[in-house]
This record gives sequence, structure tokens and C-alpha cells, in this order.
Amino acid sequence: MACTLKLIPMMREASTTFEKLDLDCGVALSPVEVAYETYGALNAEKTNAILVLHAFSGDAHAGGEGGWWENMIGPGKAFDTHQYFVICSNVLGGCRGTTGPSSINPETGCPWAMSFPAITIADMVRLQKMLIDQLGIARLLAVVGGSMGGMQALEWAVTYPEQVAAALPIAATARHSAQQIAFNEVGRQAIMADPDWNGGNYYGGKPPARGLAVARMVGHITYMSDQSMREKFGRRLRAPDQFEVESYLQYRGSKFVDRFDANSYLYITRAMDSFDLTQRGALPSLFEGIRTRFLVISFTSDWLYPSYQSLEIVSALRSRNCDVAYCNLTSHYGHDAFLVEVEEQTELLRGFLASTFREASRKA
Amino acid sequence: MACTLKLIPMMREASTTFEKLDLDCGVALSPVEVAYETYGALNAEKTNAILVLHAFSGDAHAGGEGGWWENMIGPGKAFDTHQYFVICSNVLGGCRGTTGPSSINPETGCPWAMSFPAITIADMVRLQKMLIDQLGIARLLAVVGGSMGGMQALEWAVTYPEQVAAALPIAATARHSAQQIAFNEVGRQAIMADPDWNGGNYYGGKPPARGLAVARMVGHITYMSDQSMREKFGRRLRAPDQFEVESYLQYRGSKFVDRFDANSYLYITRAMDSFDLTQRGALPSLFEGIRTRFLVISFTSDWLYPSYQSLEIVSALRSRNCDVAYCNLTSHYGHDAFLVEVEEQTELLRGFLASTFREASRKA
Repeated sequence: MACTLKLIPMMREASTTFEKLDLDCGVALSPVEVAYETYGALNAEKTNAILVLHAFSGDAHAGGEGGWWENMIGPGKAFDTHQYFVICSNVLGGCRGTTGPSSINPETGCPWAMSFPAITIADMVRLQKMLIDQLGIARLLAVVGGSMGGMQALEWAVTYPEQVAAALPIAATARHSAQQIAFNEVGRQAIMADPDWNGGNYYGGKPPARGLAVARMVGHITYMSDQSMREKFGRRLRAPDQFEVESYLQYRGSKFVDRFDANSYLYITRAMDSFDLTQRGALPSLFEGIRTRFLVISFTSDWLYPSYQSLEIVSALRSRNCDVAYCNLTSHYGHDAFLVEVEEQTELLRGFLASTFREASRKA
Repeated sequence: MACTLKLIPMMREASTTFEKLDLDCGVALSPVEVAYETYGALNAEKTNAILVLHAFSGDAHAGGEGGWWENMIGPGKAFDTHQYFVICSNVLGGCRGTTGPSSINPETGCPWAMSFPAITIADMVRLQKMLIDQLGIARLLAVVGGSMGGMQALEWAVTYPEQVAAALPIAATARHSAQQIAFNEVGRQAIMADPDWNGGNYYGGKPPARGLAVARMVGHITYMSDQSMREKFGRRLRAPDQFEVESYLQYRGSKFVDRFDANSYLYITRAMDSFDLTQRGALPSLFEGIRTRFLVISFTSDWLYPSYQSLEIVSALRSRNCDVAYCNLTSHYGHDAFLVEVEEQTELLRGFLASTFREASRKA
């Protein structure tokens, strides 16, 4: 384990290795490395731990400088590191320190590439549970995340309800719609259409940069709203023959290649698409008897994870008298809102976490 | 000119060549061939001609078996061929008989490819005007089209208001938004990322089939709505590891390659993106004094060409006391609705065309 201090007091970068992880597909992955970061300090009672779950292209670096949720994690912020112990780990299948298709298969000494086993959201969560156990945390104060992070939060609540005081799925869904699958499939096809992808065997050579960039461009459009794109770019030109929005997307596409692995793109989007809580039963029956508190958040202009998907979860929870608060926040940032709308989310989260903490402390 | 008879009585396939077309970019294209079809018969007064304008991936084959608007054109249909003379030509830059990047540049004896000059929606309409003049039609009863066809209808009305009794822009816009440009740009990048594109020089060799297929997949998602995709595909599987929506998009993508030219994709989407009526003045000022009647149609679930874009046109027309009817049809088919919602459109169009015809005949 490596420890470093950064901007947030008590920020810590670490990694740990587990001997084995049993996957839904039947394969046992061994060994499995997990990269994670923590912010703040675990209290003596171990009742103040919040597990933050990242979205598709995120990583363990949630808080601190350049963290994908740096405005939400830190002293005095929504996830107040004076009060809470915040943990974020890179997901299984990722390419930022946790075992994934770019990791070395110990049996061959070569990267797994497409021989990496199929993974699910439940596999990701099972690995996170092992990490939480290792950290000696019997019960999390909260699991929280946006987009794919929210799907993991739901998985946590359904699979380990006794280990989660509160679940906060933000801009999430209990299962991908045909449209969500379709956009992911375009990304996958763009990657696999790139000859440099080479059946996934590009490590040590030229990665499928063009295909991955096209995939990322599609993603970025779906993360924004019609209105936010109009306000940000309009029809402004960057060059006589190039609109600003084109140059922006090309730039974001090409930058993505530097930090993301194309095979991770394939595996993680596949995990998202295959996620479907209702395969285990109707949603209300899954929530039956769960004492976890829920705060479900969606955003009015999010057309990729539309509000009706959050409402489906809320209705199911309400039908079983679960403790659930729901907020459809007004925003024109589209799906990106969960990263951008800091103030409104902070207001909502602060009170909810505080009351959950009071209640959890009383019970502990 | 070649003439053939098909299912619609008086259906005619033809092509004609013009010596020269002056383009907006300053280049004069010479010669220019135009492929077109006509349905029904031109009356003696030449007052019953309707110019149907196709969308991005359409062609001159609008009516008759397999025509993209076959349910709308024919005896007793919305565009009743017992009464009207319907014309549809393949657009400039196309690949279905009209001069485009796949045509031979007479100066080199080779396909134009990317040396084809930049084209605009106004260029397409200028060429259509030459065809209409050649057919001896002084004034069209109507210009009508959906999507890019609607943009051409608007261009006709603004540029040749005296030659158009009625204009029917359906699911269209006076200018592309950043989001519309962005989706087109993804398609272009997917094509150009394919090594088989080879700078546009693939004629006689392998076309950029994978890139063009990915571009088409993105297109198809934007043509449908979240709801229509949910109803058509849901999360149904086609194979253990493949959702039906994935297989559908892959199939549609690969089929597109058989009938569409990748360079035409680049040139025509560029023409759509650069189209902006407001560059010539505020919309209301462009409609000042126009006596053309308008029927503007949009669809509630069309998120690619949202209703607000049609409303912008309607408001501008109303502000100048132009004759305009507007209908935001309830449909869950998304942008595809203009091809699918036959009954409701037929009802609207039939009365509108009949009254326009009565009025136009009285004036003639």
C-alpha cells in the first residue's frame, strides 16, 4: 500500500490485492487488485464511512485536486471530510489501478485483453464489499454515485441492505433502456471498427485511438442537453469550416484516449447494459423489508437517464413503505448535472447525511 | 431521358443534364445531372405540381413500391396523383443519380471524391429550380419535405416566394442547433476514422463500410424516440450476449453501406449543418411580404428536430402576418414520425393542398 498526502487533509491513495473474486459469469478472477482513495478519517465507532461510486469513465480520484467530484468532497463540502470518511475505488474492469482487461493475466504473463471474463455491476459491488470488509467497516453510512455509480448504489442496497444505512442513486436507473444500450453499442462498434483495436490485442502497440475518440464523442453529446449545448456552443465557428462544437468534441475524444482503455470501454459498458435489477424480481419485491434510507435524485434535462427511471425506483420503494426522498432537480446541464450542480446537491445531501448519521449513531 | 412505368399510374423515372450550376462557394459545377421521378400528370394550366423534397438519406424514389413516402403519394393518398403532379429529385451531392462526389469529374475522368466543391441547401434548391423551369412549371402548388426536405422547402419559400403557392416544412428547422451539428459530426468522424475512407479515394476499391455503418447507427438512434425504442426493442435479447436493439442497429448500419456513398454523407451533412436562414437576416424580415401559404408540422417526440425549432419559424411568419398553420402532432415515433405518421399527416395535408389548389387555380 502506498500512501500520499494531497490537498484534502487526510487524503490517502492506496491499493490492495485480494486473492480471488468470484464473478457472476462463473469464473474466479485471481488475484484482483483494487485502487482506491480515502478522504477524512474513520471514526472510532466506524459509523461515518461513505462509499462514493464512480460513473463509467471515472476513477478512484473523486476528491482533491482534479477529482471528478472535488467540489462535493472536502472540508465543509457535501461530503464533509471533517465529519465523514469518504472512500472511492476504481471499478472492476477499469483501467485506473483496479484489475481490468489491460491487467496482466498471471497465467499467460500477457494482458487479459478480450480474454478477460465478462463482468457485471454486481461483480463490481462484490469487490467493493471485500474492500469495505478489509477496512473493518461493518456498515456504511452511505453509498452514493451518479449514473453507473448510482446503479452500483442500488446494487449495494439490494444485495447488502444491512451494511448500508443510506443509498443515494443519482441520475441512475434500475436497468438500461433500449436507447441507453443503443448509444453504448455505437461506442463499442466504433472501437471495434478501428483496425488498431485488432480484436483487443493492441497493448504495447497502437491503441484504437480513432474508434475510442468517436465513441467518446457520442458519449459527450448524450451527457449534455440540447439547451446546454446551445448555450455553450451555439453555431459559433472555430474556423471558417469548423463549428466550435465539432472542435470541442474532437478535442474531448482525442484526450480521452490518453486516460482510458478501449477494452475497459467494451467491458464496462457491457456491464451497464446487462444490469437489470428486475431480473431478480419485480422492483417492489426487491425492496421489501429494506431499512436502508434512500435519497433518489434526477435532473429535469437529463435525457440519457430520464427522470422516469428514477421515479420507477421511487415508486417501488414507496409501495413497500421504504424510507425514500426523491428530488427531480431543475437543471439544464443534462446528464452532466450530477457533476455540475454542486450547490443544489450539496444542500440536499448535507441534511440527509446528517440525519442518517444521527440515526445510525443512535443505533450503533 | 429514360422512362419506365411502375405501380403508380403515370409514374415516370427520368434524368436530365444541365450545362452548369453556380454554387454558393463560387465554383461553377459543369455539367450537372439530376435524377428525378414524377407521379401523376401535369394539368394543362400547369398549376398542380408539387415538389417533394427528400431527407438526408432519401432519394428521388419517393412514391411507388419501396418509395420512402409511398404511403403518402399515389391515387387517393395525401399527395393524390389523380389530382396532382408530384416531382421528386435526388439532391445535389447525392449518390442516387444526381451529381455528387461519386460522379466523374470530366476534367480528370475520375470521381470527384473530396475534390467535389462544398455545397449548400441553397445550391440543392437552385438545381431543383432549374429542373422545375425545364419542366415548364412557372409556379409550384407546393414544396414539401421532412427533415432536410423541410429545410429545402423553407429555402424555396424564402428564395423563390413567387414560384411557390405553399410551403410545408415538416420536422424541420431554419438552422441546425449545436446538438444537431454534433450528431452529424460524430457520423463524419466515424467515416473519416475508417482507414478504408482513404481521404475519400475509395471508389473502385473497398468503401469505408465500418465507419459508414457506425455513422448510420448513430443516425438511427436519433431518428427514433426513447419510447419507440423501448416499445420496439425493450431489453429483449437476440442472442445470449446480444440485445435486439444492437442487432437491429448493426443490420441497418451494414445495409446502409449498400445504398449510400460515404463522401455524399460528408457533403450533405455539411450542407445541413451550414444551413442557417438567419444569416440572411432575422427570420421575420425574411418572411416579410411573402404570399406563400405555410403549413408547418412538428412531432411531440421528435428530439432531433424539436418542436421549438418549428415554432420559431411559425412565430416569425405570424409576426409578419403570413398565412401559416402549425400543428405539433402527437406521436411517439420521434423524428421518424414524418415517415410513419401517415394518417394524421394525410388528414392535415389533404385539406391544406385542396384549398391551396382552389385558390391557386382562381388566381391562375
